[in-house]
Amino acid sequence: MRYFENITDRERAIFEAGITLGAIYHQFSGTPVSPETADEVARCIERAAELQPCVERAEVDIEVEENDTDNYGGYTEVSGRNLRVRLVTRCGDWEAVARLEFVEELNYPLMWIEEVRRVRD
Amino acid sequence: MRYFENITDRERAIFEAGITLGAIYHQFSGTPVSPETADEVARCIERAAELQPCVERAEVDIEVEENDTDNYGGYTEVSGRNLRVRLVTRCGDWEAVARLEFVEELNYPLMWIEEVRRVRD
Amino acid sequence: MRYFENITDRERAIFEAGITLGAIYHQFSGTPVSPETADEVARCIERAAELQPCVERAEVDIEVEENDTDNYGGYTEVSGRNLRVRLVTRCGDWEAVARLEFVEELNYPLMWIEEVRRVRD
Amino acid sequence: MRYFENITDRERAIFEAGITLGAIYHQFSGTPVSPETADEVARCIERAAELQPCVERAEVDIEVEENDTDNYGGYTEVSGRNLRVRLVTRCGDWEAVARLEFVEELNYPLMWIEEVRRVRD
Repeated sequence: MRYFENITDRERAIFEAGITLGAIYHQFSGTPVSPETADEVARCIERAAELQPCVERAEVDIEVEENDTDNYGGYTEVSGRNLRVRLVTRCGDWEAVARLEFVEELNYPLMWIEEVRRVRD
Repeated sequence: MRYFENITDRERAIFEAGITLGAIYHQFSGTPVSPETADEVARCIERAAELQPCVERAEVDIEVEENDTDNYGGYTEVSGRNLRVRLVTRCGDWEAVARLEFVEELNYPLMWIEEVRRVRD
Repeated sequence: MRYFENITDRERAIFEAGITLGAIYHQFSGTPVSPETADEVARCIERAAELQPCVERAEVDIEVEENDTDNYGGYTEVSGRNLRVRLVTRCGDWEAVARLEFVEELNYPLMWIEEVRRVRD
Repeated sequence: MRYFENITDRERAIFEAGITLGAIYHQFSGTPVSPETADEVARCIERAAELQPCVERAEVDIEVEENDTDNYGGYTEVSGRNLRVRLVTRCGDWEAVARLEFVEELNYPLMWIEEVRRVRD
């Protein structure tokens, strides 16, 4: 498509991975979640992410522990501290593997590219 | 709880229904969805809503039709036009039944109270 | 409007306050914010809230301190811990004053009704 | 930073542009807006985006017209149809210019890279 003539397939795989990680984080942060519902919410986020352009596969994990729900509401919410994502995007012959995870040493929910690789079916 | 001494149980059932309808709409609007994933996303919204204070039951329906996905991405998103919610809250002896639905004559995704009733277990 | 015949004006002022508090929390949680931008984001939330039905006035405060930005990104985000809202809704002769604030003893960002009062212009 | 050793500065400028476009869209879609408040909300989105890693400048426009508010609420909301973003990211010697805009022929709010260029201060 003419909109992507400025960049290579490898670069677009990286660009789309960025879009989808940013989308997941900002769409779902704040969603009420408990130990009992964490898996169902994670699957829902995967299904939503996999609809976005170039996304081949999304693996989402929401780590909620019992003591996270020690509060008036008895639940917690999806946040940069409990959300982990591994995403595979593909454009042409290129695949990017991207991650989102809270990195303690950075005190920050980092989004990064773990690997970019050429694939052939 | 002292925070709710200003209002009756009936009023609190109504208040909490409002909170949860507002929460659902603004948390999930924009979520990518397709005819294939609509049910899974609807269940996820129900699970999230049912964690909120006083919510007894949430029934969510996302009406996505094939032609809603006639676009470059091949999917659509949760919005005031396709989201329908029926919520039951309870506080003490009072239950409120609240709804969210796009009302054509208002051209607006209306949130309203369908019924408030006294219950006894 | 026939949709609100089931409830009184007083109840609707309470219902709409709930909607708008839930909306604010779930729309804006996750928004990047710093000590320098907190006021501008707070004003934006006020303007958005004041468009919603029956909302007369919204006062929003986002308390971001320098050490909240001690992380790789150098910023933090709007959350239940730093967001405070005071909202006035009106329906007919009734005004409700609603609040959102993190309550330490509940370890929870509570939404409650501070006052409901009859007003006359 | 070791997390970004897999990719070049040029690629990271592209990646971070993707993250921030995805973030803006999914954070702010659904925000109540009117012709009178559109500029203030746009400025708020710019301030939020400019806090994210590598973002040099964000230019946001929300095109709300009077007839968009012909509904019960008298306002509309930020969406893929009215939101336009131009973003400049920089990593090392590389700048990426990214855009978000509803493209009629695609019937889709497209995010793309308009230009990637080497810069020298």
